[in-house]
Amino acid sequence: MILDKINMPSDLRCLTVEDMKTLASEMREVIIKKVNTIGGHMGPNLGIVEATIAMHYVFSSPVDKFIFDVSHQCYPHKILTGRKEGFIDPDKYLKYTGYTAPEESEHDLFKIGHTSTSVSLACGVAKARDIKGEKHNVIALIGDGSLSGGEALEGLDNAATLGSNFIVIVNDNEMSIAENYGGLYDNLKLLRVTNGQAECNFFKTLGFDYLYVEEGNNVEKLIEAFSKVKDTTSPVVVHIHTEKGCGLELAEKNKEAFHWMVPGLVDNFGKPQAEYECYEAITKKFISDKVEKGEPVVAINAGTPGVFGFTKDFRQKLGKHYTDVGIAEEHAVAYASALAKCGAKPIFCVMSSFVQRTYDQMSQDLCLNNSPITMLVHWGGLSGADATHLCSFDMSLISNIPNMVYLAPTCKEEYQAMLEYSYNQNEHPVAIRVPAGMLVSTGEKDTTDYSQLNKFKLVEKGEKVAILGLGNFFTLAKEVKEALKTQGIDATLINPKFITGVDSELLEDLKANHSVVVTLEDGMLDGGFGEKIARFYGNSDMKVLNFGGMKEFTDRVPIEELYERYHLTPELIVKDVTKILK
Amino acid sequence: MILDKINMPSDLRCLTVEDMKTLASEMREVIIKKVNTIGGHMGPNLGIVEATIAMHYVFSSPVDKFIFDVSHQCYPHKILTGRKEGFIDPDKYLKYTGYTAPEESEHDLFKIGHTSTSVSLACGVAKARDIKGEKHNVIALIGDGSLSGGEALEGLDNAATLGSNFIVIVNDNEMSIAENYGGLYDNLKLLRVTNGQAECNFFKTLGFDYLYVEEGNNVEKLIEAFSKVKDTTSPVVVHIHTEKGCGLELAEKNKEAFHWMVPGLVDNFGKPQAEYECYEAITKKFISDKVEKGEPVVAINAGTPGVFGFTKDFRQKLGKHYTDVGIAEEHAVAYASALAKCGAKPIFCVMSSFVQRTYDQMSQDLCLNNSPITMLVHWGGLSGADATHLCSFDMSLISNIPNMVYLAPTCKEEYQAMLEYSYNQNEHPVAIRVPAGMLVSTGEKDTTDYSQLNKFKLVEKGEKVAILGLGNFFTLAKEVKEALKTQGIDATLINPKFITGVDSELLEDLKANHSVVVTLEDGMLDGGFGEKIARFYGNSDMKVLNFGGMKEFTDRVPIEELYERYHLTPELIVKDVTKILK
Repeated sequence: MILDKINMPSDLRCLTVEDMKTLASEMREVIIKKVNTIGGHMGPNLGIVEATIAMHYVFSSPVDKFIFDVSHQCYPHKILTGRKEGFIDPDKYLKYTGYTAPEESEHDLFKIGHTSTSVSLACGVAKARDIKGEKHNVIALIGDGSLSGGEALEGLDNAATLGSNFIVIVNDNEMSIAENYGGLYDNLKLLRVTNGQAECNFFKTLGFDYLYVEEGNNVEKLIEAFSKVKDTTSPVVVHIHTEKGCGLELAEKNKEAFHWMVPGLVDNFGKPQAEYECYEAITKKFISDKVEKGEPVVAINAGTPGVFGFTKDFRQKLGKHYTDVGIAEEHAVAYASALAKCGAKPIFCVMSSFVQRTYDQMSQDLCLNNSPITMLVHWGGLSGADATHLCSFDMSLISNIPNMVYLAPTCKEEYQAMLEYSYNQNEHPVAIRVPAGMLVSTGEKDTTDYSQLNKFKLVEKGEKVAILGLGNFFTLAKEVKEALKTQGIDATLINPKFITGVDSELLEDLKANHSVVVTLEDGMLDGGFGEKIARFYGNSDMKVLNFGGMKEFTDRVPIEELYERYHLTPELIVKDVTKILK
Repeated sequence: MILDKINMPSDLRCLTVEDMKTLASEMREVIIKKVNTIGGHMGPNLGIVEATIAMHYVFSSPVDKFIFDVSHQCYPHKILTGRKEGFIDPDKYLKYTGYTAPEESEHDLFKIGHTSTSVSLACGVAKARDIKGEKHNVIALIGDGSLSGGEALEGLDNAATLGSNFIVIVNDNEMSIAENYGGLYDNLKLLRVTNGQAECNFFKTLGFDYLYVEEGNNVEKLIEAFSKVKDTTSPVVVHIHTEKGCGLELAEKNKEAFHWMVPGLVDNFGKPQAEYECYEAITKKFISDKVEKGEPVVAINAGTPGVFGFTKDFRQKLGKHYTDVGIAEEHAVAYASALAKCGAKPIFCVMSSFVQRTYDQMSQDLCLNNSPITMLVHWGGLSGADATHLCSFDMSLISNIPNMVYLAPTCKEEYQAMLEYSYNQNEHPVAIRVPAGMLVSTGEKDTTDYSQLNKFKLVEKGEKVAILGLGNFFTLAKEVKEALKTQGIDATLINPKFITGVDSELLEDLKANHSVVVTLEDGMLDGGFGEKIARFYGNSDMKVLNFGGMKEFTDRVPIEELYERYHLTPELIVKDVTKILK
């Protein structure tokens, strides 16, 4: 194996082009095996193998600096920079993260997981070099849909002003996670079909020199191109045309499915999946029904349709009622706000981790204008995710914006009722934190009038202790109630439903025969729901215990460990409560 | 006066071109007089008079929809849409806001005050039209620096996908608030010098048709151009070259100074100003000193240098140590993070209201990477500002991000010490909430070691009641302490200094001989500082009273009224405290 001989980037320089082709095949093999075993980003990494080899062959990392956008295509880079064991040895598959990580290697500059950040970061790296009088190359690798994000566009606009060495490799695989949207991608197409010769060139308009490489999976051509731009003294874009999923036929033919995949997909692709009821299916049915009725509903997402179960079939069925804005969350929120203001019915689906890209748009474009959109926030909650993809901050972020109504359903029936309420009202922006995990059903239709804002639901009346179990943690609240029974306490159980407000009347009533209020929320405590309850009772004798996540970036910490750390088990909560009752 | 005859846009259609030229002069006259009387945006409005007349002449608002970016150039639009009294009659100068406001007129669609939002909003307006089967023109007016913001770029990229009527008027006055930065502006220049003929055309690369109008202050040429694009069935950009400040010589020659101006500047421009010590001067001296010592400091701002006192002289003096990224706050934060990571010393100055454009960058690019930048947040606090420019949300936004250290100095000496600490450390991103209002000086050097995080300062030890006066409100805390004395209470006075953490030890100690803790913060309570104190004491007998702003968008509400509303006067606070002590 050639790979056996490669322990650091400089080892590449002993190889012939033929060797490098063999190496590329070997790298593909280990990537395919690993990703099919533990899951991860398949297509992006298979597509970028040759480019990564060529980058490390031509440039000298870590003196020259690589910044990988999203960094979900850094597997080949990790293999070439001393971390190949994490790809070869199944026992070490989990040793390295799926993203660049400075704590792992001097070849990684930043922790990166959100899109469209590489060019701006690279500008800072280049400016630091210049102001310190150093000399080296700065190379940002971007593509795979990230180019359309506002931060990337701001960065590209600013790069030209540096007036010094700056290289952007645009990995054009003709895809985002799903198909590309936006005028920019038509320009990339024009550049491809003219072999880079078209004068109408997006990158040139921003002040970049420009070079096109049609064969982006040909290591020889890439080395040639990168050699040309090495040590450039002005900003240059190298536009490389690659094949996403290159080398794995299934992934080449099913680019979206193999962008990120669960373990085993290579073996199981196309086989019938177990069907189960889920919140995504409820949303899809809801939208379809409105479309069929001829209503002006518009389902919006920002480049991640798979997260919401928006399959190709479904997207096609929606037709003009579907908008994928590409990676452009800011645009999505403003666009939705204007749709709602003009009488259409936008439903914006977004992952909790990515909704944070839109705070100003939620505040200014949306909430200040009080536009009645429906925003469905997915995957919100504590988890064992990478630090780059945590979903524990959305409640603190969204719930403190004036005019916003942020709802936390605890089951299918509540979710359906909230969807209907949000869709039919014209008073407020409404966000719904779609429950995480398996679907819960009470079997009883929820007839709550949600236009009565901030009315918590008193589920079971007890005394001494009241438990407010918000959204995902309502189940935990029920368990705590059961556990308290063993201590002789018949606790009150409350389902708050509203994250954005406090039910003063109900909270006031609790004072009569309760001495402790417990809040449970599936997210960071700081700025969240529980603190508002603590503030409410600040002037009273009521004790308040807030349970939720701490303010920290956790990185792949198993969820059970987090629950222990944050006292989020019935046992630990009961212990804390009884301590205070003494 | 022609203006006398104009009460609604359709009245324009009775005018000859000559009449319209006269009208433009008359409009300029009232704008100059009003802005010189009460302050406001001078240059942007003087530059856009003819374009606004032409827009209303050619299109039919409110059937056709205008969306004004930033909407700081909507004065001519307001004059033409039934609100001219607000510009002619000094008694009614304050009747209408300086921004578009749907509650004022059916000709205003959105409340807009932050930049770069118009194109995305217009996309939503156009899509709503299309999906409802309506017919009308949608016109976004953008320029004056806003084009470089990520949201605008995302919007432009998406507009092409609409495939229907969509008109963007790019108001190119060759300026932002200050000079323009970014490759994009070189392209605008190329388009200007080629009279719009250059093939390398930013807008065309994004899928727009394109039309150039060299004489952007010639109403006849503008009418001609707008007539050509009216009822277009595909996205088109009309690039108009205007003169910022047109018609007021002083404003034409001093474009930056007359972008937004205080009352009387037309009369007083160039006259010597009273010199007074301010926080901005401290920052500038701090930066200059570092530059002189040859340190790798980089002062960064995003298109608003005047806010920080970064005059042209100062900028030139800094040379390569100065970066204006243009309207591109997201880029600014990522850029600063990378600078710090690579050993340079970035100091990013930003207004509280605009820092909210960067939450994801603060979280992912900055805090997750723990890059030791210095971020100076200006103007934070409750105010009588327009709803679009409130500065009361930054604490909730910034202080809940892990790893961030957010400091609240209460005087000059603390500000200096915090600046030095932040600049010299390499452990954390540090934000400082630069005190608002007049400079306060104790005259005593602050020798605090701020690397000891979350250590509150016990200023005066008392009993029963402890007052935590954060940042701007430390002065109020002192007043409350004095007022409590008249009630026979010798309160403890604490200067928390840290917004991002809680001094558990000190708070624990307070339990010994205090029964009430009062928190005072100059910003929204929700998600803020006080709630964390309430949470801390939730399991104890300590009563906690949080004072600060409510979660709401206030719009030009006098600050005294807000202080009454929120109980932020010594009298009202003492009343609330004594109520609880009984």
